[in-house]
Parts: sequence; C-alpha cells; structure tokens
Amino acid sequence: MLVKFGRFQKEGSIFYGIVEGDEVYEIGTPEKVHKLSEVRPLCPIIPTKIVAVGLNYKDHAEELGLSIPDEPLIFLKPTSALVGPEDAIILPPESREVHYEGELAVIIGKELYRPRTYKQIEEAILGYTCFNDVTARDLQRKDGQWTRAKSFNTFAPCGPYIVKGLDPSSQRIITRVNGEVKQSSTTGNLIFNVFKLVKFIANIMTLYPGDIIATGTPPGVGQLKPGDVVEVEIQDIGVLRNYVVDYKGKAS
Amino acid sequence: MLVKFGRFQKEGSIFYGIVEGDEVYEIGTPEKVHKLSEVRPLCPIIPTKIVAVGLNYKDHAEELGLSIPDEPLIFLKPTSALVGPEDAIILPPESREVHYEGELAVIIGKELYRPRTYKQIEEAILGYTCFNDVTARDLQRKDGQWTRAKSFNTFAPCGPYIVKGLDPSSQRIITRVNGEVKQSSTTGNLIFNVFKLVKFIANIMTLYPGDIIATGTPPGVGQLKPGDVVEVEIQDIGVLRNYVVDYKGKAS
Repeated sequence: MLVKFGRFQKEGSIFYGIVEGDEVYEIGTPEKVHKLSEVRPLCPIIPTKIVAVGLNYKDHAEELGLSIPDEPLIFLKPTSALVGPEDAIILPPESREVHYEGELAVIIGKELYRPRTYKQIEEAILGYTCFNDVTARDLQRKDGQWTRAKSFNTFAPCGPYIVKGLDPSSQRIITRVNGEVKQSSTTGNLIFNVFKLVKFIANIMTLYPGDIIATGTPPGVGQLKPGDVVEVEIQDIGVLRNYVVDYKGKAS
Repeated sequence: MLVKFGRFQKEGSIFYGIVEGDEVYEIGTPEKVHKLSEVRPLCPIIPTKIVAVGLNYKDHAEELGLSIPDEPLIFLKPTSALVGPEDAIILPPESREVHYEGELAVIIGKELYRPRTYKQIEEAILGYTCFNDVTARDLQRKDGQWTRAKSFNTFAPCGPYIVKGLDPSSQRIITRVNGEVKQSSTTGNLIFNVFKLVKFIANIMTLYPGDIIATGTPPGVGQLKPGDVVEVEIQDIGVLRNYVVDYKGKAS
C-alpha cells in the first residue's frame, strides 16, 4: 500500500500531513483534516544535504558524450537550492543554457553509516519523491567541476509528496516541458539501483533523516526558457510542476 | 582587537563561549567563566553547508598540474564530514592516498544573497578559522568530480576558534605533520581574496549564518598515515590539531 506524506502550508501555518484521496491529515493533530485543494504542498522535507548521482542512465551518459562510470559518480547540491512544487525556477544571468533533469529521489528516514545488511538500507529509506536536478549546462562544461552549475538558488525543485511503499525498480519517469514529453524512461534503466546508491553513499558519509539522494536523469535533457512549465512525473508519486522565470522574475 | 569565540564541551554540557586569555566566558551566561584548560573546544560552528574553493593558490594549481581558473572553482563538502580540534581523521579503506590541505575558512554570520556593496559582504562575515580540506587524492583523480574524495566522515576538521577582527589578506598559514612544516604561505597569495570569494559564491547561492567557506590550500599538500599529527596554524587564529588513525581507529 502506498503512503503519501508531505509538508503543507495553509493560511500561514506549515505542517506535515498524510495525503488520503483528496484530504490531508495533519501529522501530530490527526483530528485536523484539510482538503488537498485548500493546502499548498511545499518541498516535502528539510534535509541536511542533497547527494546527487551523475550519469546513472546509460543513454544519458552517451548523449553528453561521457563514458559510463564503473562506480556511482556523486556530487552535492546545496540545500539552499531547494524549492517546492509550483515554485519558480529562476534562470540566473550567469548562464545562457539552463537544463531540466527529471529524477527519482530517495529520502532517508534513519541515520545510516556503513550498513552491513540489505535490511539496514531498506529500513533507512523513508520513501521517494520527484526531483529536478536543474543544471546550467554551459557552466558545467566551463568549470569541469559540476558544483556551481547545479547550485544556484531554485535549482533543486522537489516534491510533491514523499511516497512509501512503491517499487523503486520499475517506476515510469517522464519529464514534460509545456506539456511535451522530453524524457521518458523507467527506473529499471538505472545503472546503479537505489539500494546500491544508498550503500555506496553511506560508505562515504553518514546519511541523516531527511537527506535526499537524487538518482540521476534519463536521456532527453534540454533547455528551459522563461515562461516554460516543467513537470517531472513519476508513476506512483505524482507530478512535480515548476514555472520558469528570468532573473527579474518575468515569464517572458 | 581580536575576538575569539568557539563551541566548548565540559562535563557533558556544550556551550558557546568567548576566549579571553586562559579563560572562556559562556555566552548567554556571562557569569559562568571556565578555565580554557578545563574545557574541550569542539568544531566551532554548525553550518548548513561548506563551500570550498579549488586551486586558489597559484603554486598549488601548478603542483597538481592543473591550470589556474579565471573564476573561482567551487565545490561542496557535506556537513557530516565536520570534526573539531583534537578529533581523529579516519583514513577510509577506499583510499590509499589521503592528503591534508590547510586552509583559511570564512564563517558567515548573516544571510547573504547577491550583495550589492562591499559593506554588505564585510558585515556578513562573522570571522575566520582554520580548516583542513582532507582529500582522498586517488579518488579525486579517478572520479574527475571531487565530491567523493572530499566527503568522507572526518574529512573536514575545523577550528579551534572563530576569530573576528583579523586582517584576512595577510595571515601566515602553516601546515605541519608530526611537527615538520609541509605548507607555508600567506593568504596574501590567494588568487581570489576572501571578499571576491564570498561575493562570487553569494551570487550563486544564499549563504546562511554558520556557513563555512574554505578558501583553498597553498602548495605542499601531501599524504597522511595512521599515527600522524596534522596541524593547521593561522597567525591570528591558532592551531587546529588532529590525529590520523586507520579505519579500525588505530594509530599505527
């Protein structure tokens, strides 16, 4: 059974809640029930870090002209880049080529370091959500190191909900721009699956509750322009929709 | 006048304090005064992120055979890697070549994004401390991306105190291993000075109070072995001393 939970805003108050049908049950105050249509989903979690994985779909590595790594290739995005569903992605004046990258994200629920068993990894995963690893492709090429290109404010849209109970090995993942399908794959095409990624990363650094692991993007990345609507949809999670604006906040 | 403050532990309680001579005044409870010799300095700050800068001393870029960038080259280290003075640096089994990199770190005191004036930058800097950007050089070469190499737990020693009121443009910086000087330079040799770095980074991402910016390492990086004592000393700050152990916690 799928359990969906998120962080919501209603009339200035922010709370965590479980989504059931078109209702949201406030966690900690279960007698408080809201209509889903009357609350605003926020970025569903506040992590201590975002670890992302490069080149984890074979075809995407090929489209960038990069070789397929024999181990996961990780990088970090700052938590200051996080935004939620329906938030703006702001194109910074420093880049002329900002790309979407739709991804499945793992959310950690329990501290994990150097796990010894598969069960420990499984128990440390709180659930999954949609993530857009927004990237200034021109700066990524220029710097060699990917950090600047992936760290601008608003470059980490995440949400709408964290879903527990889905099968992460066969989720259909689609990215649309203005309704047109640009990326379409399944997480069955991941070179390193979710459990291998969590193990690899937790062998380097302690993962804390809330930490986000973005698992890499399928082929079909491309440019965003002011006014674009970009959506990352994952089968059992839902749609993460964001609006692209220029640095002055304009959609065109 | 120099003001030195830090985070300290004494008999299970943790507090912030101002260091004056051989005494520590507990912040918030100024009537509580401790002998410096009776408290343990911890990593002096809890940041939301650590931004580090590569190749920011000309000679260090040359010793790595890398070209000097025309803009700062940034990367992130996870906050999970932080340790304090006198803590162990643990050599992970995944690397056979872990290097010290002594650095001056800037500590942010005030939220900063796209500053317009030099004064805004100046006011956003809380102070400075010593930092060791510990790096698995073999994994850095293998991955191309630097993140894994710089993200292992204990790979971000920081401290002992945050010092306000020093001149960051002319601090003598020395790294010693077992008492022998390995790196010796001054922050006058930085390619991009502290203010240029803070401005560059704050034009990408919002900096929050506590955030750490490690400003790059001078030439002379080299390998650490179990049993080594590594010290980063900066003129007006003091000495950040750490003990190197192998993955089993052994010093030899």
